[in-house]
Amino acid sequence: MPHEFKMIHRVEFADTDMAGLIHFSSYFRYMEVTEHAFIRSLGLSIVMWETFKVGWPRVRVECEYNGPLRFEDEVEAHLRVREKKEKSLTYGFIFRRVKPEPVVEVARGSLTAVCVTRDGNGEMKAVPIPEAIASRINVAESR
Amino acid sequence: MPHEFKMIHRVEFADTDMAGLIHFSSYFRYMEVTEHAFIRSLGLSIVMWETFKVGWPRVRVECEYNGPLRFEDEVEAHLRVREKKEKSLTYGFIFRRVKPEPVVEVARGSLTAVCVTRDGNGEMKAVPIPEAIASRINVAESR
Amino acid sequence: MPHEFKMIHRVEFADTDMAGLIHFSSYFRYMEVTEHAFIRSLGLSIVMWETFKVGWPRVRVECEYNGPLRFEDEVEAHLRVREKKEKSLTYGFIFRRVKPEPVVEVARGSLTAVCVTRDGNGEMKAVPIPEAIASRINVAESR
Amino acid sequence: MPHEFKMIHRVEFADTDMAGLIHFSSYFRYMEVTEHAFIRSLGLSIVMWETFKVGWPRVRVECEYNGPLRFEDEVEAHLRVREKKEKSLTYGFIFRRVKPEPVVEVARGSLTAVCVTRDGNGEMKAVPIPEAIASRINVAESR
Repeated sequence: MPHEFKMIHRVEFADTDMAGLIHFSSYFRYMEVTEHAFIRSLGLSIVMWETFKVGWPRVRVECEYNGPLRFEDEVEAHLRVREKKEKSLTYGFIFRRVKPEPVVEVARGSLTAVCVTRDGNGEMKAVPIPEAIASRINVAESR
Repeated sequence: MPHEFKMIHRVEFADTDMAGLIHFSSYFRYMEVTEHAFIRSLGLSIVMWETFKVGWPRVRVECEYNGPLRFEDEVEAHLRVREKKEKSLTYGFIFRRVKPEPVVEVARGSLTAVCVTRDGNGEMKAVPIPEAIASRINVAESR
Repeated sequence: MPHEFKMIHRVEFADTDMAGLIHFSSYFRYMEVTEHAFIRSLGLSIVMWETFKVGWPRVRVECEYNGPLRFEDEVEAHLRVREKKEKSLTYGFIFRRVKPEPVVEVARGSLTAVCVTRDGNGEMKAVPIPEAIASRINVAESR
Repeated sequence: MPHEFKMIHRVEFADTDMAGLIHFSSYFRYMEVTEHAFIRSLGLSIVMWETFKVGWPRVRVECEYNGPLRFEDEVEAHLRVREKKEKSLTYGFIFRRVKPEPVVEVARGSLTAVCVTRDGNGEMKAVPIPEAIASRINVAESR
């Protein structure tokens, strides 16, 4: 059952800053884009309000940086499902620069999203992950 | 009657790119932030769906660049209402670097937004600007 | 000789805003990413300071919006070289939503970049496009 | 001696996403803008390559989200120096929505930046924080 996903991102010009390297916040874009591609790979869309009446706000994100990325470098985002709780999912990410070679790990991160619905007043409330989603996702053994 | 608005923006680190200067797209952020501050200065909010059932998608934007901006430079965005049609507003913008001195014009731009509502199917449709809004905005003489 | 280039972009979550649609500024990211992919398709990199001692600041950009794009829509950016002057290049862009179908044009834009070098004081100065670059790019007949 | 800094940020339209709330990555922009304003409050600029031959890449960032922010909300970023090591600084951030009232904490984060120089090959290497900087910053008692 799906528990991981890999995706290549290219460092674009707008992702860099005047230090000449990737801006640290660009990794959070890559994490989210990878998460959403993972969900699509399950035949779903992260925008599932109409189908399941739930959304996925983030409750915690982090990133550690081990080395720089430069314009036009290609980086593999390796997503692994690290935790599947009743009402939340935590993804771990390892980022490896794959171009230019040699392949080298440049960052690690994680993202925890909680499954919420909205009550009549528009207030968000955590709810169990719908079975149709939870049953399609597994926790990775190596996290 | 209000027809212009000025606002200072500071060039932040994330607004720069590896060329060491401001990324060209940052000016569109400044235009929009200035437009929304102008609307607030009228006692309104650009998010007026609940009050007036209208939104303001953009139909045209442009920007011409005359000189660079660098990190921590301060730039004045000078908004002028250039055109007020039945269903749309066009703003002109002049950007002047005000710090460091000397003051120098660095860019000019424009933004046209159309007043729309949504029909029962969620489709957007241009509608006349609500009187409560149109009556508060004037076209600037010097545009 | 190369005079056009096509590339598909997916509308990511961070590209949307609270109106539920793509934020207008996202198109400028797509334009630039497409421009740089076009340059790579010629065997070059837009970051050519070390090879040719030139950079490509923008002097003018614009975009017209004809229809909305939504999260996970796929949009084809069709770049055409519209003008090749001694010291600048102008690209025209047509954006067509290709997924979901039917295919529909959603925006048109253009971007003019000038070829510059830096003098001893770091000041930018327009210079002729290096022959190695100019000789690889042609103006598209249909612009 | 300076060990904390407060700054108000307004949630701008481009900071929101289709969920109708602030996009989680916007907090990292607020953290960085606040960090740089803190450094300016010391009479310095974070871009100190010419003066001190050092830069400040990030080695770790994180953010926990406790509640939503909406368009035009005002949020106070409260920076505190949490750790001052020989070669790195860690800042803690508490974000409180201050408008509309009531004041409520919406997020907490941290950012660790390392002081680096570049050797002859352009490789980054951690170095002790220049005395002129280290002597101006204190660790906050309450962190």
